[in-house]
Amino acid sequence: MADFQATVENYQNITKKIRHLSEAISLMHWDLQTNAPKGAIQGRSEAIGGLSGEVLKLSVSEEMEKTLNELLKEEYFNQLSSAMKASVLEDKKEFDRYKKVPQDKFEAYNILTSKAQAVWQEAKGKNDFNTFQPYLEEIITYKRDLIELWGYEGHPYNTLLEEYEPGITVEKLDNIFNYLKENIIKLLQKINAYLNVLDDSMFQKPYNIEKQKEISLLILDKMGYDFNKGRMDESAHPFTIQINLNDVRVTTNFDEHSFNNAFFASIHEGGHGLYEQNVSEELKNTSVCTGTSMGIHESQSRFWENMVGRSLEFWLYFEDEIKKAFPENLENVSTEQIYRAINKIQPSLIRIFADEITYSLHIIVRYELEKELISGKIEVKDLPNLWNDKMEEYLGIRPEQDSEGVLQDVHWSAGLLGYFPSYSLGNIYAAQFVNKMKKDLPNYHDLIRQGEFKSILNWLKENIHCHGKTLKPTEIIEKVTGEAINPKYFIEYLEEKYSSVYNLPME
Amino acid sequence: MADFQATVENYQNITKKIRHLSEAISLMHWDLQTNAPKGAIQGRSEAIGGLSGEVLKLSVSEEMEKTLNELLKEEYFNQLSSAMKASVLEDKKEFDRYKKVPQDKFEAYNILTSKAQAVWQEAKGKNDFNTFQPYLEEIITYKRDLIELWGYEGHPYNTLLEEYEPGITVEKLDNIFNYLKENIIKLLQKINAYLNVLDDSMFQKPYNIEKQKEISLLILDKMGYDFNKGRMDESAHPFTIQINLNDVRVTTNFDEHSFNNAFFASIHEGGHGLYEQNVSEELKNTSVCTGTSMGIHESQSRFWENMVGRSLEFWLYFEDEIKKAFPENLENVSTEQIYRAINKIQPSLIRIFADEITYSLHIIVRYELEKELISGKIEVKDLPNLWNDKMEEYLGIRPEQDSEGVLQDVHWSAGLLGYFPSYSLGNIYAAQFVNKMKKDLPNYHDLIRQGEFKSILNWLKENIHCHGKTLKPTEIIEKVTGEAINPKYFIEYLEEKYSSVYNLPME
Repeated sequence: MADFQATVENYQNITKKIRHLSEAISLMHWDLQTNAPKGAIQGRSEAIGGLSGEVLKLSVSEEMEKTLNELLKEEYFNQLSSAMKASVLEDKKEFDRYKKVPQDKFEAYNILTSKAQAVWQEAKGKNDFNTFQPYLEEIITYKRDLIELWGYEGHPYNTLLEEYEPGITVEKLDNIFNYLKENIIKLLQKINAYLNVLDDSMFQKPYNIEKQKEISLLILDKMGYDFNKGRMDESAHPFTIQINLNDVRVTTNFDEHSFNNAFFASIHEGGHGLYEQNVSEELKNTSVCTGTSMGIHESQSRFWENMVGRSLEFWLYFEDEIKKAFPENLENVSTEQIYRAINKIQPSLIRIFADEITYSLHIIVRYELEKELISGKIEVKDLPNLWNDKMEEYLGIRPEQDSEGVLQDVHWSAGLLGYFPSYSLGNIYAAQFVNKMKKDLPNYHDLIRQGEFKSILNWLKENIHCHGKTLKPTEIIEKVTGEAINPKYFIEYLEEKYSSVYNLPME
Repeated sequence: MADFQATVENYQNITKKIRHLSEAISLMHWDLQTNAPKGAIQGRSEAIGGLSGEVLKLSVSEEMEKTLNELLKEEYFNQLSSAMKASVLEDKKEFDRYKKVPQDKFEAYNILTSKAQAVWQEAKGKNDFNTFQPYLEEIITYKRDLIELWGYEGHPYNTLLEEYEPGITVEKLDNIFNYLKENIIKLLQKINAYLNVLDDSMFQKPYNIEKQKEISLLILDKMGYDFNKGRMDESAHPFTIQINLNDVRVTTNFDEHSFNNAFFASIHEGGHGLYEQNVSEELKNTSVCTGTSMGIHESQSRFWENMVGRSLEFWLYFEDEIKKAFPENLENVSTEQIYRAINKIQPSLIRIFADEITYSLHIIVRYELEKELISGKIEVKDLPNLWNDKMEEYLGIRPEQDSEGVLQDVHWSAGLLGYFPSYSLGNIYAAQFVNKMKKDLPNYHDLIRQGEFKSILNWLKENIHCHGKTLKPTEIIEKVTGEAINPKYFIEYLEEKYSSVYNLPME
C-alpha cells in the first residue's frame, strides 16, 4: 500500500489534468456558441472530440482505478477532507459507469449521435419523422445496452434517471407526475372556464436590442450575478457554462420582436449562473465543484425566472427602469397589465414557449413515452401518433405536423433520455424551496418589491449553492425543507398565483 | 523497424494530440486578452500552464523520438509528402532543442519569467531599474546556459537569433544594421535640416469609437481578410493568433483620442492575419502550418501598415469613406495633409510609437546591447546608462527616466532575447518584397489607388503565405527576390517616400 500523501498527490495530479482539459473544452464549447467564425467549426469540433477522449481515458485509466481504490480504503478515506471524500466518491461513480462501456461502443455511439443530430435537424425541417426513425431506434438500442451494462433496480429507466437526477426513480416520478397531471389539468380547466383573455400585445412591438441588453445586464447585476466572475454574451440558444469556478458565463438571445424571450432567458440563465458562481471555494479543484443535478439547477433558474421574474413585486421594482428604456412601447400600459401579460396561460405545441402551468404537461408527455420506449412497451415508429394523442389528452391541442410535435426538440438525437423529467422537477423543487424560504424570510415579497435580492441570494447560497455536488438532490431537498420531494407546493404556488392573475373565484 | 504506415499513423497520433492541446491553449490565451472576467485569470493561467506542460512532454517524449527517428531514415523519409517531410524536420528540430533542457531547469525558468514580468511592471511604474536588475541577471544567466546546452557557431547570440529568425546571424546583422544606422541617421539629418513641421493636429480631436470600429472592419475586409475564418476584437495590446487554420483572429485597441493608433494597429494585425489565413491547406494538420518566422511575419504586417496603409494612394482610395465617417474632424483637411500627418517624422523615446524612419534605430539600440549582454562584454547594471547614451547618439534624444528608456518594453522580462531584430528585419524584407512585387505588378500604385487589393494579396499568397513554415526566411527571400537579404531596398524606399513627404531636394 502506497504512502497516504503520495496517493493523495497522485490523485490530485490525475484530477488536475482532467480539470485543465475540461476547462479548455468548456471554453471551446462556449466559443463555438458565441464567437467562433464559421470556418473554425470543423477543426474546433475535432479538437473538442480529441480532448474529450483524453478526459475519458484519464477517468477510466488504471492509474485512476488504483488511486481511487487506495483512497477508498477506510484508513485512508477517513483522513480525507470532506470535500476530497465527495470528490473521490464522485470520480469512483464515474469510473464505474464508464469503465464498463467498451471503448469501440462508446466511440460508435458518439458518431451515431453526431449524425443523428444532423439528421434530426433535416427531418424537423422537412417534417419527416421517417428519416429520423432508424437513428432514434439505434439510440434506444444503445441506451438499453447501457442499462444492461450498468444494471438497474426496479424500472430499467431508473438507470437513465440516475445520470441526471440521482435518487429519483420511475416509482417516485409516476406518483409525482400523476399528482401534477391531475391537478394541473384541473387548474387549466378552471382558467379556461373563467377565461378573460389577457392582452399581451405590448410585447409584439419592436424593442430596441441595445436597450434590451442594458436591461438584461442591469437585472443580472441586481440579482447578484458577479461580472468579475462571469460575462453575458449572445448565442442562438441561451446557456450557462462554468469554465472555472471564477469564470461562469451566461448567454442570452435578443430578438427585436420578442422582448419577453430575451428578458426571461437572461434571468433564467442568471439563475443557473448564480448557482455555479456560488459553489463553496472549499470545493475548488475537486470533482464536486458544480451544481449537483439538472433538476436542482433548473430549480435555481426557474425560481429566478418564474417565481421572482414573473412576480408582480419584481415588475413594480423595475417598472421605472423598464418604462424609461422603452417609453413608446409601454406608455399607457400599467405594471399590473404587464404582470398579467407575462403570465398569460395558453396551451401550445412547443415546449420551450410553454407557460408555467402547461409546461409540466409537455414534460409528462415525453416522460411517459421515454419510459415505455426503454422498457419496450412501445416502439419508435409509433411515437408520432402516441405523442399527438397525449398532447390532445393533456393539453387539448393536437399537432398537425411532427415538426411541431415529436420532432420539436434536439434532445433525443443527442442521446438525452432520462433528462427531461429534471425540467419539471426543477419547478417542484423551486416551489418547495420557496415555501421554506418564506418561513426564513417572512418579508420575502417585500424583498423582491424593494429589489433586496441580496437576502434571497444569501439564503440560496447558504442552503443550496455552497454544497456543490457534495449532496445529492434528494439530500438537499430534505436538508433544506425537512421533507422528501413533494409536488403539492408547486401546485399550491400555481393555484395561488393564477387565481390572482386570472381573478379566479376562491374555493 | 516498424511498418511504414504504422509509423506514420503513430506520428500523426502524437502530433494530433499536440495540435488539439495547442488549439485549446491558443483559444485560452485569446480569451484572456479579450473576454475573460478578472476572476478567471488565475485558474485559466494554471490550466494554460498545465496543458503547455503536456505539449512539452509529448514533444520530447520517447515515443516522439522513436517515431521521428524512424521517419527520418532515408527509405521512409523519401516516401513522405513534402508537407510531412517539413513537419517531421520541424518537430525534430524542436525535439533536439527541448530534449536538451533539464525539466527542472525549464520549470524554474518559467517561474522566473512569470515573476520577472510582474516585477518589471512594478519597476517600470516606479521608474526603478534596481528592483528589476537581479531578475534580468538571472534571465541572462539562463540564456547563456541554454546557449551552452544548444551549442553555437560564431557569436553565442546566434543561438538566440536562430529561434526567431533561422539563418540570421550576428555576422549578417552587424552588416545590415550598420548600413541601416548610417543611412537612416543621414536621412534623419536631412529631414531635420529641411524640416517644415507637419501639422497632425487633426488626429488630436476625439474620434467616435464605433465609427473607428466600422472603418477598421471595412479596411480589413477590403484587404481580403476573411471574416469566415477570423474575427476582430479589442484587447489592451493588439495581436494576431492562429487558433486553427480556419480561425485566425486579430485584435485592435480603440482610443477616442488616438485615431491613428487603432487605425494602423488594425491594418498591422490584418497583415499578420492574412499571412496565417493563407497558409496552404495542404499544410493543415502539420507542424509547419504557420508563418515561418517573426521577421517574415513582420514583413507582412508592416507592408500593409506602412507601405500600403501609409501611402497617399491608400488614403485617396479611402478618403470618401473616412471623411464620411468623421465629417467634423476632417472637414477642411485635404487627403494630402492627412498623408503627410501620418508620416510625420519625430525622434521619440518610446519604440512602439516610433515613426517609420527612427523605428529601426530603437531596434539597433537594443540589438547592440543584447548581443553584448550575452557575450558578457557588458553587465546588466550598466544597461540604463548605455541605453541612454545610445539613444542620444543615434536619435539625438536622451531619456530622463528608465521607464521611458531601458524599462519601456516587457520583452526582456519574458525572456525574449534575440527577438527584437526581427522587427527591423520585417521592414527590410517588406521593402525587398515590394521591389519585386512592382516588377510583377507594374501598376502596383494604381492597384492601391483603386482599392484592388486582391491582386496584391494574391501575389503575397503565392509568393509567401502559401509556403507556411516549409521554407526558412532566408529561403523565401531568395526564392522570391532572387537575392539574399539586402537592406538597400528599405533605405531606397524611405528616401523616396520621405523626399516626397518632406519635399526634400533631390540628390
